[in-house]
Parts: sequence; structure tokens; C-alpha cells
Amino acid sequence: MRSSQFLITTLKEAPADAEVISHKLMLRAGLIRRLASGVYTWTPMGLRTLRKVEAIVRDEMNRAGALEMLMPAVQPFELWQESERGDQYGPELLRFKDRHQRDFVIGPTHEEVVTDFVRKEIKSYRQLPIHLYQIQTKFRDEIRPRFGVMRGREFLMKDGYSFHTSFEDLQREYRVMFDTYHRIFSRLGLRFRAVAADTGSIGGTGSHEFHVLADSGEDDIAFCPDSDYAANVELAEALAPTGSRPAANAPLVHVATPGQSRCEDVAQALNIPLSGLVKTLAIVPELPEGGNAGLVLLLLRGDHELNEIKASKLEGVGAFRFAREDEVKDVLGCIPGFIGPVGIKPGIRVVADRSVAVMADFACGANAVDTHLTGVNFGRDLPEPEVADIRNVVSGDASPDGKGTLDIVRGIEVGHIFQLRTKYAEALNCTFLNEQGKTDVMEMGCYGIGVTRIVGSAIEQNHDDKGIAFPAAIAPFTVAIVPMGYHKSPAIQQAASELYEELIAAGFDVLLDDRNERPGVMFADMELIGIPQRLVVGEKGLAAGQIEVKGRRDAEATMIDRAGVVDYLRKALAQ
Amino acid sequence: MRSSQFLITTLKEAPADAEVISHKLMLRAGLIRRLASGVYTWTPMGLRTLRKVEAIVRDEMNRAGALEMLMPAVQPFELWQESERGDQYGPELLRFKDRHQRDFVIGPTHEEVVTDFVRKEIKSYRQLPIHLYQIQTKFRDEIRPRFGVMRGREFLMKDGYSFHTSFEDLQREYRVMFDTYHRIFSRLGLRFRAVAADTGSIGGTGSHEFHVLADSGEDDIAFCPDSDYAANVELAEALAPTGSRPAANAPLVHVATPGQSRCEDVAQALNIPLSGLVKTLAIVPELPEGGNAGLVLLLLRGDHELNEIKASKLEGVGAFRFAREDEVKDVLGCIPGFIGPVGIKPGIRVVADRSVAVMADFACGANAVDTHLTGVNFGRDLPEPEVADIRNVVSGDASPDGKGTLDIVRGIEVGHIFQLRTKYAEALNCTFLNEQGKTDVMEMGCYGIGVTRIVGSAIEQNHDDKGIAFPAAIAPFTVAIVPMGYHKSPAIQQAASELYEELIAAGFDVLLDDRNERPGVMFADMELIGIPQRLVVGEKGLAAGQIEVKGRRDAEATMIDRAGVVDYLRKALAQ
Repeated sequence: MRSSQFLITTLKEAPADAEVISHKLMLRAGLIRRLASGVYTWTPMGLRTLRKVEAIVRDEMNRAGALEMLMPAVQPFELWQESERGDQYGPELLRFKDRHQRDFVIGPTHEEVVTDFVRKEIKSYRQLPIHLYQIQTKFRDEIRPRFGVMRGREFLMKDGYSFHTSFEDLQREYRVMFDTYHRIFSRLGLRFRAVAADTGSIGGTGSHEFHVLADSGEDDIAFCPDSDYAANVELAEALAPTGSRPAANAPLVHVATPGQSRCEDVAQALNIPLSGLVKTLAIVPELPEGGNAGLVLLLLRGDHELNEIKASKLEGVGAFRFAREDEVKDVLGCIPGFIGPVGIKPGIRVVADRSVAVMADFACGANAVDTHLTGVNFGRDLPEPEVADIRNVVSGDASPDGKGTLDIVRGIEVGHIFQLRTKYAEALNCTFLNEQGKTDVMEMGCYGIGVTRIVGSAIEQNHDDKGIAFPAAIAPFTVAIVPMGYHKSPAIQQAASELYEELIAAGFDVLLDDRNERPGVMFADMELIGIPQRLVVGEKGLAAGQIEVKGRRDAEATMIDRAGVVDYLRKALAQ
Repeated sequence: MRSSQFLITTLKEAPADAEVISHKLMLRAGLIRRLASGVYTWTPMGLRTLRKVEAIVRDEMNRAGALEMLMPAVQPFELWQESERGDQYGPELLRFKDRHQRDFVIGPTHEEVVTDFVRKEIKSYRQLPIHLYQIQTKFRDEIRPRFGVMRGREFLMKDGYSFHTSFEDLQREYRVMFDTYHRIFSRLGLRFRAVAADTGSIGGTGSHEFHVLADSGEDDIAFCPDSDYAANVELAEALAPTGSRPAANAPLVHVATPGQSRCEDVAQALNIPLSGLVKTLAIVPELPEGGNAGLVLLLLRGDHELNEIKASKLEGVGAFRFAREDEVKDVLGCIPGFIGPVGIKPGIRVVADRSVAVMADFACGANAVDTHLTGVNFGRDLPEPEVADIRNVVSGDASPDGKGTLDIVRGIEVGHIFQLRTKYAEALNCTFLNEQGKTDVMEMGCYGIGVTRIVGSAIEQNHDDKGIAFPAAIAPFTVAIVPMGYHKSPAIQQAASELYEELIAAGFDVLLDDRNERPGVMFADMELIGIPQRLVVGEKGLAAGQIEVKGRRDAEATMIDRAGVVDYLRKALAQ
């Protein structure tokens, strides 16, 4: 493509409402334009990238034997009533009435529609398994659309749904998709992690999220660099420390800590590390029938954070809130900040994190204002506590699979695979005749990829102060030719055009920047757009039979032989 | 693809609500399934055809230099208010409110959105011309969706919009698109006609419709087989007959025609051809300020039909209705069926069609019940009438371009190109700086193709009693391999699989029907789906080194050498 016949609409500044870097750069590079809140037009430049993402997703889905179909964006609301998701889904489900006052939705997802299709078309075990997918426009009426295409309202999604005669066969397909997703994100050129959304193993009634790793991600992921283990921080198990508890050594002492209610301040005042301190959190489990079951104290090491999901999974806890100041005072006789597990009324439940359970001679609040205790020991100064895993893992923790230590990184969820089992098939009566001629409910899996979102997250992962640095697989063009004086020198014009034709013939996606702009403007645009390789056609190179090349991430340009340019680019882009 | 790994869901009978043949066959062949009124799911089989249509459209649009982009399906209603189409468009425009009570529509077309995009991105004549297009889902809330995908509510459309500095440049692009559309429909393998929607020439403030020719089409098209002339019957000019009027010969005679108010009956009773009879239609032009301007009599040859559009374009007529019986009685003293232009009160306007103006010795109503006149002549028995073209052309009429005679065929509109001029650009203030540095309004063209509708119309044009006979370019598969005894004979299985691999490697879209079905079922399915070439792998052919081939439209199968099958198919599919 020649720039003069294309549409390049780069901007010096991003609009003020663009918050994250990918949103800013997509606007500045002219990949998208806002039409309404959370609703974007893809420009010719942006669409080239979007289509490359689509093509890789489609190719790998087909390779895995999934069949592409196309379901409507508009869906009758009655299907959502049948699955009982109609009201559950909330206002993100956009509903409207047609001219005959019939209820419809603009589909945010297609479990109901595909299950309706399969229950009508598939009758026998001989037609199973089947995996149907589509790449299609969705609408989710987000209350606060933001971050550009990362959390838009209208977006493109690949959604696949598989149907099976048995749970075992669903698990087989789930593993196929687990591998397929790995291939897809690898081919897209992204650094990513498959993250267990529950147990951390592929087996089981599982679900995995696929995250593109980027500092700006909304999710914290714990992963083990030495193994395949990866999980959302909320779900990663914190193993019990390997060593046993040391013997009690120090005496129990009351220490004045005036105004020092924060762990950091107390540790500094006492001249001990944060990890020598135990913090006490008072929570109130809420009973399903209303009211509450009284205070529960949770003990965490001073450098650890409570994992609320883990706490809510404690037997007898469930949904909970933090205790109000008056409740704490009532029960412990002290304001929060100085509370602790020593000398409390009998019957108050105390749960210690696994890491707390092995501590000796620790410090904690004294249940008296401006006072802490040091030299505290379980069994001597207070009863042995109930022990559980109630904290978030931190970098350096042992990996739950026993194969190394954990690292924490941030990620952006771009894919999700899920064993739905019979949830929708039961609700919509999606059955088949099994080999014994009896009616059975189908097992079902679903597999989503946020096609639009991938573009945003690829940029979050790959950018610098000059703009986007697209992976070659999804760059709108892979090679930019920038001629020096195209409109002044017939020799330059001819050399640039010959190079362009040669590279097109060799199969490269080339953009020849034949605009009548200053070199600086052209360089800046090609870098902002994120084209992986740049060639400069200039007088000097021409005379020497050479050409200037520069990778998007290279610090310096280099001269290579003009004759070797195709080989050079093939190698450079394959990296 | 192997059938066992694909989804074939053919039906013996089409649902009762399918009215037209394409709708019936698409359901029976399992290409689509209904989700709601006018809203269809494309099955894996159907989507293959839809994508092939898309690919050809895209390829030719790109070749013509148009740039693909992707605009949202959901559009803010305020843009429609700006163009003043919001209320004009009527209830086919589906409106809804988002969760913040802001007004949106699901776009039935994108003139507003693209004009809004261009007014923001394009500032200078140096960035023009530009042609932006998309292939995208539209929604039109038809009051009575029918004919399957031919008149659905949710459908796929290619819509392109070009922007220009001058009318001349718009006309240039219009001609490019005229040619591009010819290439697209030719490559799709369809018999079609470009039909002038007004003057019949590409120049002028033009508009052309592209019609796929099919007996079931909703539109009558007049075209000249010896030239490029084609127009909607409503718009084709009926030239004046070349000969002049013969001299009056017969005397004026009153003839009794009891009960014979229909032209056919009168002609038979009088023993004259229909073309020797003049029928008189009484119309009442309605005045814009209310009321009417009195009766006007229109004279047409007995074998011709009134063209209401042409009549409404007569000076002083405009919108009109047919006279009521009481009005006819009041003015002519007779009921309709026996009225005529002879002996009427002075001042009644009489307009004769060009073909009537050259008649002599004709018959017509006598303005008396059960009576007609014969031997009627202008100038002798009644004044010379006002003459105009007020009839529909018929087969055999001279072509308006003077290059032959017209044929009438039925067509289905699948494309439309249109010179919008400055309608939207003015309403949305879409301007540019011209070479003189002055602000000017852009000239604009729009170019639509009903991608979904093409599939339906291709089937309307290409089917027989066995099912669909797809053109090779858009068949879901181009070659079907039907093995005789795949599940019984290892030799057949091996031969079929080898053939399959060989054809895949040669680039064919092959479906190997490896289902455990009777041959009759497989043959019927492959014919119903419309796969252009069928190969049968059987014991006899295997022994003789031959294979049975049959084109979808062939009456008989033939045996060819197995070794020559690739060459044979290449030739057969290229036809």
C-alpha cells in the first residue's frame, strides 16, 4: 500500500479522556475513532491489525476442528428467560422492543442461541461431539466504558461452544482448547499466561483465563517461572512454611506505641521487621437469614494481605464484612489498630494464617489504646489458633506445585475457557439419544477470546515513548519504506517504487510512505503506528548499493546490502 | 472437509412458512436456521457460501482502491437528527435507549457515521478523493420480514462511501464502481443487469441498481439484448411508433357490447385485436392545497398498461387517484368500462399515449352503458389529443437507445450505486479546504451490496427440483466425493481418502461424504446443497482405474480416467 492511497490520520496529542496507554496510542496512531461512549470505529489502519488477529484465531480454531458459524447479534429475550439469565445479567444486557413490541437483546454472549440451535439440530450421540464458534460483534452496556477498546460496549469476540456426550469428552476438548489458545497467543506474538481460575490444574471442573502480561493489567497473576503454574493471586494457594515453629524465647511485654496504629510504624518503633509482627483483623460473617454470627479475628503476618475470597471460604464464614469501630470496642474494649488475640473473652473465634501459625516471640496489638505486646507465643500467652490459608501469595512464596517460587505479574484477561457442564443444556433441554437409545443431557464447554481487546492489550505490552511496537504478526504493515525526497528526485522515486514492488512480490505487507512530508514526520508516524521494520531509501545508500534498515525496537539504524533486503527482512520479522 | 467432522443438517421438507424457493432450499440444505422473525443463524455450511461472497466483494473493492474500515453497528441517534433522517426513516429504524437513557439506533445504513468520520479526519483537498467501505451487520426493522434472507431484518451488507472535491471526480468514481460491480457479479457467477434508476445513462446525477435475473424477482426490468440498455420497467421510455397515423377509413359506428366492460371481451366481440382498441382511464389529480382539479382521461392501447409514475410526471398532474364511479358518472354520464373520449364535455383534459396517437379506425367506449364505438378517428370524431409517454414498455418495444428491441425480465436488486452529491455533506457540514484555501462541501457517492441477499438471489436463479445448483464461485464446497461402501470396504476407504488428499492438495474445496449413509441419501444431500461436481468412488471404477463424475446440472454421470481427475475438475469448475 502507498500512503498516498491510504488513510493515515495520526495525532500529536491524544484526547484528554484517554486514560490508558493503549487507548492513547490507538487514537494517536489513528487505529480507532470514538463514535459514542465505548463504541469505536476501526479505521483502515486499525482494521488491518484487527483482521490479522481474527485470521490467526480462525486458523487455529479450524485447525482444532471447530466449525465456524454466524449467529445473529439480535436475540429474542425469551431465550434468556428460558435460561433464567434474563434478570440475573443486569443492566449490561441491552434490551429493546421491536416495532411489534417483542422483546429482544443485543447479544453480549451466545450460550442461549447456540444451545437452542444444537437442541434443534443434534439428535444423536453419532453427531457428537461438535464445537461451533463464531467471530462476531457483541454489545455489553457497561456502566462506565473506558480504556478504549479494552472495556468498550461494542466489541468483536470469538465465542466457541462445544457439546459432548460425556464429561470425559468435554475434558478432552477442554485440553484441546487449552493447547489451541496457547498456539493462538503464541502466534499473535504476545507474552501471556494461562491462569487457573480455580484449582490450578487442567483437570477438574475447570476454567482457565488467558492473560496478556502487562504492567497496566487489572489482574494480579501469581506464576512459577520454573513450571506451568499460574493463577489469579486471589486463587493461588499460599503453602504452609516448611519449617516448624521455634521455641518461645522472649517474655511477654507491654510496650507503649503512642499513635502508632499502622504496622509499618509499630515495626519501626519496635525495631523489628514487618514479618515479626502479627496484625489482627476483626470481621463479621453475615448470616444468610440476616443478622451476624459475632466477631471473628483473623491473624496475618504484618507484611501479608488478607485474601477475602479465601476468608469467605472458611467454614462458618461465607459472606462477611469488616467489623465497625463500635463492634470492635464492644467485644475487645479497644479501637482497631491496637487489637490483638491475647487475653480476649473466651468463645471468640481466632483464625491464624499458616505463616502466623509458625511464628514465635511475635508482636501484636494489646487490646489497649497506644499499646502493643512483644514476645507473644501461642500455647503460652494464648491458645493454639485455628490455622488456615487466608492471605494473598507474594513474590518469593513457594509455588503450590512444589516446583519453585512464585512471581507476581499483572495481566489483562483476553481469553477464557470454561467447562459449563450441563447448566445451559439442562435449562434449555438440550438432549441427545445415547448409544443405549436413552435421552441424555449434553455436556458443554465454552471458549471466548476478546478479539478487539487483544489489540489493546498487545499495545499495553508493546510500546515505548515513540508509540506502538506491534508484534510482526499483527502489525498493520510489517515493513515501512520511507524515501528521502520522493517528490524531488526521480532516482529516489524509482528506487523506492522498485523496492516496494519487490517486497510486495516477496509477500511482505509493505507501506510505502510516498506522502510529501518531512522525513521527521514520516519517521515519527511509522514509529507511532508501530511498523516492525523501517527501510530508508536515500541518495547515499543508492550510490553504495545499500539500504538503511531499522527495527522498531532498535536503538540505531544500520546499512545493509540492497540485494539482501528480502532475506534480511524475512529473518528480522521471524524473530 | 469430511462430512463426519462437519455439520450436515438437511431436511426433507421445508417449514410451512417458507414462501419462496431460495428460502425453502436454504432451510432444507441446512444453510440457515431461523432464530426470530427475519433473523437467521448461518450454519457452518451456509457461512462457507456467505464468506465466499464476502471475499469476492472485498477483493474487487480493494482492487478498485477503496479502503476497508469497520464502523459500529450501534449509532448515536443524534447523528440521525443532524441529517434530519431520524423521523423520516420511520419505524424500520430500530431505536433504543442505553442504561443512561441516551438514544441509539442499530444502524440500517451508515451515511451519517461515515460522514461524521470524514468531516473529522479529512481537512484538505490533498486527502481527497477517498472511498471507505465496510462489510458489516445491519438491522432494518421490516414490518413483515419474509423470503428468508431476501428480506430479513438482520443482514450483512457491503456499504461504501466516496468523498470528492468535485462532481466530476464523483462521476469518475461512479464509473469505476459501475465497472467494479460488473466484475463482482460476474465473478460471483450470476446473470445480472445494471439497471438505470433514472435516465438510463451512467452520466448525470445517476443511480444504478444491480439486479440478479430470476423469474421470482420482485422487479420488472426492461433491457436490450443488443446493447447495455436496462431500466426498471417503470422508468423505461416507450418511444413513439415510427410510422405515422394511417388515414381514416371506417365510419363511426355504435356497437352494442352488452356486459362487455373488459378490453379482452370487447375485442373478442368486435373480432379485432386488443391493439385495435383504446381503453380510457379516468384519473383525478389531487391538488397540494386539498381538493382536486377535475377528471383527466388517459388513453391507452388495449394491450398496454398505464405507467403511474409517468402519468404523475405529466405537467399539472402530480399525485393522482383513479376516479370514483360517482365522479365518472357525473362527468361522463356513464359507468367505467364503457367510457371513451368521444363527445365529451369541452374542457375535459384528454392525454393519449404515444402509441394511441398514431391509431386510426379504432374502437373505444361510447360513454353509454353496454355500448362501444368502432371506426373512431382523431381529428374527425374527436379533437387531436395531448400526446405523452404514459405506458409501461412491453417486450418487443424499440429500445430507447435505438439499438434494438426490449426484453422484459424479472430481477432481484442486490446492489445499488448512487451519486448522493452533497445531501449528507451539507447536512453534517462535511467540508474541506480546496486548492484556493477556501472551504467547500464534499461531493459524495454511496455504493451498496446486499451480501446476505446475494446468497438468496443466487439460489433463486440457480436451482432445480433436486435443490440448489450453486455457481462454483460461491458453492460451500466445489467437489463432493461420495464413496460407495466407505464403512465396509478398506479399499474404497483408502481410495476415497487418497482422492480427497490429492484434491485438497490441488486446492479444491472438497467435501468427502464419509457418513455411514445409503448412497441415495448422500447423493440427494450433495445435490440439495448444490455442490457443483460430484465424484463417486466405487469398486468398478477402482478396478478400471476410472472414476465417476457428474456436474450438478448434468443429466448423466460419466466415467473418466482416475489419473485425469484434477485436470477434469479444473476445467469443469472454470466454466
